[in-house]
Amino acid sequence: MGASPPRLDQALRVPGFRLGVASCGVKSAQEIGRRNDIMLLVSDVNCHAAGVFTQNRMRAACVSLGEATLQASADSIRAIVANSGNANAGTGEMERAWAEGLIEAAAEAAGIDVTQTLSASTGVIGEPFPIERIRAGMGQAAASLSPDDWEQAANAIRTTDTFAKWASRRVGDHTITGICKGSGMIHPDMATMLGFIATDAPVSADQLQAMLNRAVGRSFNSISVDGDTSTNDTVYLLASGLGLGCAPLEDCRDFEAALTELCIQLAQLIVRDGEGVSKFVTIEVTGASSEAEARRVGRAIAVSPLVKTAFAGSDANWGRILMAIGNSGVDIDPDAITLKADDITILAGGNLHPDYQDNDGMAVFTRDDFTLHVDLGMGASTATIWTGDLTHEYIRINAEYRT
Amino acid sequence: MGASPPRLDQALRVPGFRLGVASCGVKSAQEIGRRNDIMLLVSDVNCHAAGVFTQNRMRAACVSLGEATLQASADSIRAIVANSGNANAGTGEMERAWAEGLIEAAAEAAGIDVTQTLSASTGVIGEPFPIERIRAGMGQAAASLSPDDWEQAANAIRTTDTFAKWASRRVGDHTITGICKGSGMIHPDMATMLGFIATDAPVSADQLQAMLNRAVGRSFNSISVDGDTSTNDTVYLLASGLGLGCAPLEDCRDFEAALTELCIQLAQLIVRDGEGVSKFVTIEVTGASSEAEARRVGRAIAVSPLVKTAFAGSDANWGRILMAIGNSGVDIDPDAITLKADDITILAGGNLHPDYQDNDGMAVFTRDDFTLHVDLGMGASTATIWTGDLTHEYIRINAEYRT
Repeated sequence: MGASPPRLDQALRVPGFRLGVASCGVKSAQEIGRRNDIMLLVSDVNCHAAGVFTQNRMRAACVSLGEATLQASADSIRAIVANSGNANAGTGEMERAWAEGLIEAAAEAAGIDVTQTLSASTGVIGEPFPIERIRAGMGQAAASLSPDDWEQAANAIRTTDTFAKWASRRVGDHTITGICKGSGMIHPDMATMLGFIATDAPVSADQLQAMLNRAVGRSFNSISVDGDTSTNDTVYLLASGLGLGCAPLEDCRDFEAALTELCIQLAQLIVRDGEGVSKFVTIEVTGASSEAEARRVGRAIAVSPLVKTAFAGSDANWGRILMAIGNSGVDIDPDAITLKADDITILAGGNLHPDYQDNDGMAVFTRDDFTLHVDLGMGASTATIWTGDLTHEYIRINAEYRT
Repeated sequence: MGASPPRLDQALRVPGFRLGVASCGVKSAQEIGRRNDIMLLVSDVNCHAAGVFTQNRMRAACVSLGEATLQASADSIRAIVANSGNANAGTGEMERAWAEGLIEAAAEAAGIDVTQTLSASTGVIGEPFPIERIRAGMGQAAASLSPDDWEQAANAIRTTDTFAKWASRRVGDHTITGICKGSGMIHPDMATMLGFIATDAPVSADQLQAMLNRAVGRSFNSISVDGDTSTNDTVYLLASGLGLGCAPLEDCRDFEAALTELCIQLAQLIVRDGEGVSKFVTIEVTGASSEAEARRVGRAIAVSPLVKTAFAGSDANWGRILMAIGNSGVDIDPDAITLKADDITILAGGNLHPDYQDNDGMAVFTRDDFTLHVDLGMGASTATIWTGDLTHEYIRINAEYRT
């Protein structure tokens, strides 16, 4: 992390939701009492719920269980439990039983049913899951439930994150608050991007799911890579304002706009906390034939190690950017491309702009935070992708993660 | 480069082919006389020819010209000219004229027609191409033509390569010798993987093209990434043993086997010279439903920054390998996977092998050269991919390339 952690506004209470944390020594018994590694989010009433899960074919058991729970009872969810320190993935025959054990422990502590409880795990893959220590400590999480503990909950799910991440939005009389974790730069971390969002707005489960799908597409799936997800990536959204329906369509639009903003804010925090990231780069793609193609081009730039190392070196190496665009798989027209870095036009109509000076480009690439504008000159669709640079620090963190 | 350059057997003469080099100061006039940056390969007779080109949508003009030349006269090629120091890509309206100028200069110096001349350029993208200096120096390349200068030719096309790369094979009475350049680890270099191969074997242009396509798929396109190619990537194959046809099918099989071996040897040299690479890792995928799927799985492992940094850290982090397999897009069965590192079985039937000890895995990952065996347990198709680790040195090279 090159910059200091961003200052976050206080997380807003969401009426009807309480949070608790516990220190169970998930990673090792020596950590009991030293750091919280369990988070419990409980609603006073049944919630409508939606979830978005990893596209990785190697899915942790908690992901499969959560998807099944949502299919069976997306209109009566009461709690989310999550642990850091162990992903309970690749743990073989015991994986599913351990994942069920986490849910049982949380449901029992919260006095609700296992069918009303969602779960998520993050941390190292392939280590035995310490279910007994978790059972022993879960009561602490339930005993500490409070409407104000969003920030503590965000802290309890950190792994290599250097700061806790939360955000809130008001929409009409209602509140949306979310937390997330994840600090991988290229993939959303070795073990998991997690996001948990709660609102007291009255939204049906179907509407929630549709809005969450779109919001995640424009936020968590617009940082660096889609598809390159981990075994455990999960975003859950709970809405406690049940039974009221979502009568005026206008309200749903406002709600979706606020939800999307909140997800983008959380996703950008993940990029800013990217492993070894010293620069925050926004890639705005315009003039594409479809939003999907705009995203592919943006992602191709964002994931290219050669582009990311050029960012790290403050090198306005637009040749590498062109190469990445050409590798996107999108049928672009090389002669139609316009490329700008902040306010500096580098290429226009596929050619180097006559006024472009290398020093002007370098001045932009030296900034901690800048925007690449890529106009494909083909259509009217757009997408925005956020990414960071690829630095020595990334190598250090990931070459030493387990050692 | 962690290890010292491999010792290469001497390149074998190919009857009828001669090579010359020149120092034209392609990168800057100051380099004239200091290093060779032009290579000229000339055949005494018309050759059958085949080429494989970058899949990048941003193609340098030399690639488009070469493809057109092969379409028009794949049975009468006489020469290949190549320069390092400047990719002549992204150079705008002059790019095509400059690429034609390179060919004209070579054809004139060699006394042949431009329609018989193929070209390739490698180096920085987006810099004006110094066609006048090249014209001025080309005579030197023609004057120095000799059947023994394969190694000098390989040296003249180096960019960030730390050593020159060549290989030879004998097949029956015939010889195949090739040179290549490229040292990018993840992409085949910012500006280009080039390979030039010549043989005196009698093979038709159509047969050459079909065999080259297959050989490149199993060699140059099996190191780290396919599709993530640069603007200039090119492999040319010339065969001077014209008119004899390729009568016995057996000979063609032998020839293709030798050609494939030679291409694999050259491709492995590129990995071993990978930017910042300190380890050479072979990824053998078996039990796939198709060769294409086997390759996708192998590549997904080979390109994952999290896997590559684990290699760098000598960390037998098999969870990351599982994650990469899951991200390959191939519909794998997690419970059917067997994973071995050299002779150590890590996973069997999707579960951690009962005898596996982390220390045993670490002992393999500490080696400079090891093999991951991934059996998908689904079919009979296989693929082999070669890759390296992702180190601090890679970042240093690529963050500083232009500065």
